[in-house]
Amino acid sequence: MEKVNLKGKLALFSDVWAPKVVGELNGQYVKVVKTEGEYVWHHHETEDEMFLVLDGKLEIHLRDKIIALSEGEFFVVPHGIEHKPVAPEGIASVLLFEPATTRSTGNVDHELTIEAAKLDMI
Amino acid sequence: MEKVNLKGKLALFSDVWAPKVVGELNGQYVKVVKTEGEYVWHHHETEDEMFLVLDGKLEIHLRDKIIALSEGEFFVVPHGIEHKPVAPEGIASVLLFEPATTRSTGNVDHELTIEAAKLDMI
Repeated sequence: MEKVNLKGKLALFSDVWAPKVVGELNGQYVKVVKTEGEYVWHHHETEDEMFLVLDGKLEIHLRDKIIALSEGEFFVVPHGIEHKPVAPEGIASVLLFEPATTRSTGNVDHELTIEAAKLDMI
Repeated sequence: MEKVNLKGKLALFSDVWAPKVVGELNGQYVKVVKTEGEYVWHHHETEDEMFLVLDGKLEIHLRDKIIALSEGEFFVVPHGIEHKPVAPEGIASVLLFEPATTRSTGNVDHELTIEAAKLDMI
């Protein structure tokens, strides 16, 4: 029953593509993640995923277009849709909202894969 | 399949305590709301509710304490917990995250009540 300061949470870590859980409600996690360069193409079979940019630039590459996001902009990737997040300029900070069960790389096994159960809560 | 710019959405309306739906995922709504003065004490029987301040100041009054939120801070009110949102200084802009079924004043009937089904999507 404490408030969460997003900038304060982001100051606690520097690793990229490693989401940290900062809140939980209704079976959904609120996460923050730092992003740099390209992630991996993947999709989530049953889970929609929201990306809200807190700082910097993030692109969500879809197979047929690119969604370019700046601070204060969000995009929801519907379940089943292949996507690849890309931070085109330095490090971006992003808030994620998705079910507590969501695996970071969805259907793909990759060195970047983090199982939901192994997420850090900060 | 479009991105959402939160400031752009907030520029579209000026009424207070009238949440607008700006996104949906996994049966949850993303809403924005402008707040001014005091709302009404209420609780939600089964739904947790997240308040993320985008601009200004928001207080979440609980029966035993006050959570004071500034820009970039959020608080999750667990289901069943009585709360009263208060904007202590002018108008604050807030992002809400909660199940699509959530009624604005929870268990209380009030002139401020907005049924989930009657929420505007902007």
